Amino acid sequence: MTAQQLLVRELQQVLREGRVLDGAQHEYLHDATLQRGIIGSADAIAFPTSTAGVARLVEWCYRHDVPMVPRGGGTGFAGGAVPVEGGVVVALEGMHDVRSFEPWAWRLEADAGVTTARVRALARQSGLLFPPDPGAAEQSQIGGNIATNAGGPHAFKYGVTGSWVTGIEAVLPQGQVVTFGGRVRKDATTLNVPGLLTGSEGTLGIITAAWLRLIPAPEAVVLVLAAYEDVTSGCRAVQAVIENGLVPSALEYLDAGALAAVARTCPIELPPTAAFVIIAEADGTTDAATALARELSDVLADDAVVLEQISATEAASLWRWRDTVSHAVTTQRGGKLSEDVVVPVERLAEAIEGTLAIGERFDLSACSWGHAGDGNLHSSFLVAVDDEKERLRGESAVTEMAKLAVSLGGAISGEHGVGLLKREHLPLQVGTAEIDVLRSIKAALDPHGLMNPCKKLPSSQAREVVDRPTG
Amino acid sequence: MTAQQLLVRELQQVLREGRVLDGAQHEYLHDATLQRGIIGSADAIAFPTSTAGVARLVEWCYRHDVPMVPRGGGTGFAGGAVPVEGGVVVALEGMHDVRSFEPWAWRLEADAGVTTARVRALARQSGLLFPPDPGAAEQSQIGGNIATNAGGPHAFKYGVTGSWVTGIEAVLPQGQVVTFGGRVRKDATTLNVPGLLTGSEGTLGIITAAWLRLIPAPEAVVLVLAAYEDVTSGCRAVQAVIENGLVPSALEYLDAGALAAVARTCPIELPPTAAFVIIAEADGTTDAATALARELSDVLADDAVVLEQISATEAASLWRWRDTVSHAVTTQRGGKLSEDVVVPVERLAEAIEGTLAIGERFDLSACSWGHAGDGNLHSSFLVAVDDEKERLRGESAVTEMAKLAVSLGGAISGEHGVGLLKREHLPLQVGTAEIDVLRSIKAALDPHGLMNPCKKLPSSQAREVVDRPTG
Repeated sequence: MTAQQLLVRELQQVLREGRVLDGAQHEYLHDATLQRGIIGSADAIAFPTSTAGVARLVEWCYRHDVPMVPRGGGTGFAGGAVPVEGGVVVALEGMHDVRSFEPWAWRLEADAGVTTARVRALARQSGLLFPPDPGAAEQSQIGGNIATNAGGPHAFKYGVTGSWVTGIEAVLPQGQVVTFGGRVRKDATTLNVPGLLTGSEGTLGIITAAWLRLIPAPEAVVLVLAAYEDVTSGCRAVQAVIENGLVPSALEYLDAGALAAVARTCPIELPPTAAFVIIAEADGTTDAATALARELSDVLADDAVVLEQISATEAASLWRWRDTVSHAVTTQRGGKLSEDVVVPVERLAEAIEGTLAIGERFDLSACSWGHAGDGNLHSSFLVAVDDEKERLRGESAVTEMAKLAVSLGGAISGEHGVGLLKREHLPLQVGTAEIDVLRSIKAALDPHGLMNPCKKLPSSQAREVVDRPTG
Repeated sequence: MTAQQLLVRELQQVLREGRVLDGAQHEYLHDATLQRGIIGSADAIAFPTSTAGVARLVEWCYRHDVPMVPRGGGTGFAGGAVPVEGGVVVALEGMHDVRSFEPWAWRLEADAGVTTARVRALARQSGLLFPPDPGAAEQSQIGGNIATNAGGPHAFKYGVTGSWVTGIEAVLPQGQVVTFGGRVRKDATTLNVPGLLTGSEGTLGIITAAWLRLIPAPEAVVLVLAAYEDVTSGCRAVQAVIENGLVPSALEYLDAGALAAVARTCPIELPPTAAFVIIAEADGTTDAATALARELSDVLADDAVVLEQISATEAASLWRWRDTVSHAVTTQRGGKLSEDVVVPVERLAEAIEGTLAIGERFDLSACSWGHAGDGNLHSSFLVAVDDEKERLRGESAVTEMAKLAVSLGGAISGEHGVGLLKREHLPLQVGTAEIDVLRSIKAALDPHGLMNPCKKLPSSQAREVVDRPTG
């Protein structure tokens, strides 16, 4: 019997439930960064089915110095769920109960492994809305959404996932089960531990369940699509929406390169001159949504070469089209490196043009799209996965992109998180005093550094290696 | 020269700016709990005027083992700003600059000492809204609002203060100046340190500045006031609003006792049978607010003895009336002990009736009012300040109230925080594993326990003394 087989057998005894597989299951060793060549290795993959099971597992691993990597749907773009120091992948998919759903009080309590799509569907069936809508809702799980504080198009009006969490149950690195917050809508009793776990990317513990706040679904949704001939006019239109005090529920953009990947399938016919598309969504009562859509159309009309208002029935197909962008861009050369940067909205044009300039400098096709209202770009550099030189140029390009975002007063991640891929970029944005604080908090909860190691925080040589990212 | 005079002189040299007073300035030794007999003592009171000044002061105090108590407007209800171990009160009122205000991008960056009223007024003058509206806006400061994660009536629709903070500059206990987040609307780069500092009640550091998110002000506001003859009908009406999927911007209540204190001055005439009042606010475009107010009226009509719709011009005077409740209740016997509990909204009636039952049990006049939609009660027990026996019965009553809230699935504080007064109640709501986590985080940032000592966390004998609160 090999050491690995022994570990698997031991873990199965500790867990007393669910499965424990050896580390050969490829699908649990990567996330959505696979096409970037990121794949890890693990000694075992455990599938607990209860909080008590997670606690037994974590307690044992901590005591035996075994690294743990929490895993939700594996849809992350930062390598946050990729095991890099071996150890045990703790997959939450076996915890998939909706613990309670009280639509009359706008709330739901779910195991971490419940998919985002299921939460949204349950809410919808009761006339409610769970607003966060990161991509890949069918695969992504609520625990992972919280661990990454996932965003999405509707974050512009409704905020990111954390805005909708009122309580968290988690297993901390040494195996303690803790609950902070709960079904009440406000709780000022303790330090904001739910807030701290939100966006911690599995480095401070494993979220096992959460209480979510829902809201009544808006009666109507109306979309406006506008196209422009250049980035300048498009970004001027984005800014005009905000300066005019309009609050669309989503305010998205695609630049020319992103558009090229999906123009063929767009439900609205676009002229060949269209080089920038804005999608703005108005929601509310039918009257309010209609009125807002009209105002949005007025403001977006300047310089637009296309301006169409899209009714609720067609809105779904336009959103489905928007969802295909990331994949369509990737397939152009087989792979892409993306930097999920965010800038103040008035610097959006500079960040979009800057993406193209950086691509040119490194001889790579580049494009961007994203959440214009939040100044959140998915700046992407296309590479052939098997072309090592191109991939290396891509790594340099994303580093330059991170630097550009910071120089524009922004941040290196708006919603994808830092995970493995961007950890060495952190010192571009935050100073040593801040990094020391992050390390102190991490050490307080995980003194042996066993919970999702090599993620979120830079390695201790960060300052030195920042121009040679390890991702 | 006394030791205290030496300390004041030394601190003045360290600070190099602002004033340093000795500890005799009574107005800096208490907060809004003065009528409960809570007053502390300090060796000095410092008034820094810059972040660098705060950092010099904190660094020196930490090195010399001097406790520090951050202080905003001193409007807290939990004794959070009261110095209890001597040391230095760090008053932020000398830091009152609005660092930047960019209304066209819906954002504002302010020193911690800027008052809430000033932030709201600046926003309003540019057609924007800063939604959090805790009481005492003229005195309370934005740093204190964030440190306590202050709420208010509009939290029902718009969330508490933390929902509007995109970045924080703070001086941590050892004197490090750190900045997390900033002007961008999303930032997933670091652990959520702004979220952790929000609501930390000055125990993890001193907030020196913040970036705030604003939104376009709603075009119209319409209020609906409804009165009922008993708690049951009133709470049924509150629940009906939620079950019908209506989203008022505020959903407030006053019970009979609270009403008795302010009925005379109510802008709307109330019949003597009115024993429960609901105020619901609808906002949005003029059309949307009008339509929602109509729907609210429909739903609130069942069993109502008064039902009035109040236009925008009269709304301000009704809100001013609502603001007088806390003070008016206090003046009835000179003092009150309040427990700012929160319960699931369907348990609201039990919590309101429970407040009265506890009052009866301890032979105290009791009443409650608060943010009905959030299930957030200000349960108050009236006492004569100079009657020590009555005050002690009051202490027992608030402890019972905290227990009741927890037994109803709620929390001991919805928005006032824990401060000094409720620290020993914490173990009623959270277990030892949770308290250990809180202590670990505190120790990580403040290993010597010098930043606002004796606040927020229970003393180490908490379990034993819970029935004999020290407040």
